[in-house]
Amino acid sequence: MNIQKLIQQIEKKKSMLSVGLDVDLDKIPKHLLDLEDPIFEFNKAIIDATQAYCVAYKPNIAFYEAYGLKGWKSLKRTIEYINAYYPEQFTIADAKRGDIGNTSSRYAKAFFEDLNFDSITVAPYMGKDSVEPFLEFEGKHTILLGLTSNPGAEDFQFLKSDAEFLFESVLKTSQTWKNSQQLMYVIGATKADYLKTVRKLVPNSFLLIPGVGAQGGSLEEVCKFGLNENYGLLINSSRGIIYASSKEDFADKAGLKALELQAEMAKYIN
Amino acid sequence: MNIQKLIQQIEKKKSMLSVGLDVDLDKIPKHLLDLEDPIFEFNKAIIDATQAYCVAYKPNIAFYEAYGLKGWKSLKRTIEYINAYYPEQFTIADAKRGDIGNTSSRYAKAFFEDLNFDSITVAPYMGKDSVEPFLEFEGKHTILLGLTSNPGAEDFQFLKSDAEFLFESVLKTSQTWKNSQQLMYVIGATKADYLKTVRKLVPNSFLLIPGVGAQGGSLEEVCKFGLNENYGLLINSSRGIIYASSKEDFADKAGLKALELQAEMAKYIN
Repeated sequence: MNIQKLIQQIEKKKSMLSVGLDVDLDKIPKHLLDLEDPIFEFNKAIIDATQAYCVAYKPNIAFYEAYGLKGWKSLKRTIEYINAYYPEQFTIADAKRGDIGNTSSRYAKAFFEDLNFDSITVAPYMGKDSVEPFLEFEGKHTILLGLTSNPGAEDFQFLKSDAEFLFESVLKTSQTWKNSQQLMYVIGATKADYLKTVRKLVPNSFLLIPGVGAQGGSLEEVCKFGLNENYGLLINSSRGIIYASSKEDFADKAGLKALELQAEMAKYIN
Repeated sequence: MNIQKLIQQIEKKKSMLSVGLDVDLDKIPKHLLDLEDPIFEFNKAIIDATQAYCVAYKPNIAFYEAYGLKGWKSLKRTIEYINAYYPEQFTIADAKRGDIGNTSSRYAKAFFEDLNFDSITVAPYMGKDSVEPFLEFEGKHTILLGLTSNPGAEDFQFLKSDAEFLFESVLKTSQTWKNSQQLMYVIGATKADYLKTVRKLVPNSFLLIPGVGAQGGSLEEVCKFGLNENYGLLINSSRGIIYASSKEDFADKAGLKALELQAEMAKYIN
């Protein structure tokens, strides 16, 4: 999907919401466990109930890999369902991959071609030749980890070199790479103070913001410092939406929670 | 597998060789493509032919993910084959994962429990709480990216903060984490100059050294600066061994290539 289409969806739905599909069999309603593919059935219900209020879906790949072959099948069915029924949704494989050149090409093929995701999250540590292979796929996007929302972000991302934090170097340097217009960045909502700095370095890029809700980030702050003229934000919520209820009404409750977030976001979208 | 057993294997076989199982269907002998699971059949033949000369196998997960469900099945069969027939081999899931805490736990479960690998490679960018979940698994090892062998390593790993390169901070800081005795580090052979520095910071840790052979690193230099009293090195070769021949004799040729590397390594093992 190209960016223009994503922007249109944001305007049409007055939403920047991404729904994180991080499915944990211990947390989904018990009655689903008797079905043949509980993970897919859960996702399908959540997607049908939330799609009117969001513009993106983000399965975190770890949750699927944890169930081995079965999980990988559920992931495939999930992305195929979204692409078939809601092709206007922007899809994010939250995989945090990154390896040397020819190996990164393999990951790119897996997620962009075999699974047909619109985008993938990638770790920057290995530098340019680990990321550029992802950027070779036209109409696909690479979401680089910039500033993450977890406590461990303090360990390395704020190391300072020439008066510049590591995450700033990641943003600046990556903008010089080939096809960098296909880059987006993960910027944790818990670090909203730094969004001003981020916007100076990557004024035009879309930012994927995790950490609103369960992790304690503020939507207002994120919008205040993060919005650009194309909106430029995808704001993710996972647990807060998909586990809003653990009973048979789980999909309805997820829909309501998504609507609630969308309504708050609508204030910032003209 | 505990470290003591790995050290015993190194002494017994006079080898520090890890064989990288990076299987590309475009590169394997054509006659295998008619079989039901060519990736597994290729691996099985390579493993049988090389196991006497190596102490570890390292499938790079990207190559399997690129083939979707089918690839995942081949990976599972491969690791099960090694664990069943050659349980003395140390197994490395070269996955370069890393995510926030509860998500890293999922990856750990996938690779340590579902697939029963001895170790996994992990990217450090997200810091402590992204790595510690891997370290909670007793008898399992986490191989943190320190200094990688690709050109992009220059982009961030050598950023300097307080007179210290980022990769040095990664080594030092990670040694303070819980269960850090289960940490190992990826240190590219193409960066052998820095092995002295690395050994000052992590004298006791095992290092996984990619980049000998195809990527141009020197075994002699690696041993000179990298060996410690427990040997402390796993030296990987992938393409140089597994694609030594593209004909029906591929396994024999792979065995010979592995033997050649083992014989060189034997000089450094008493």
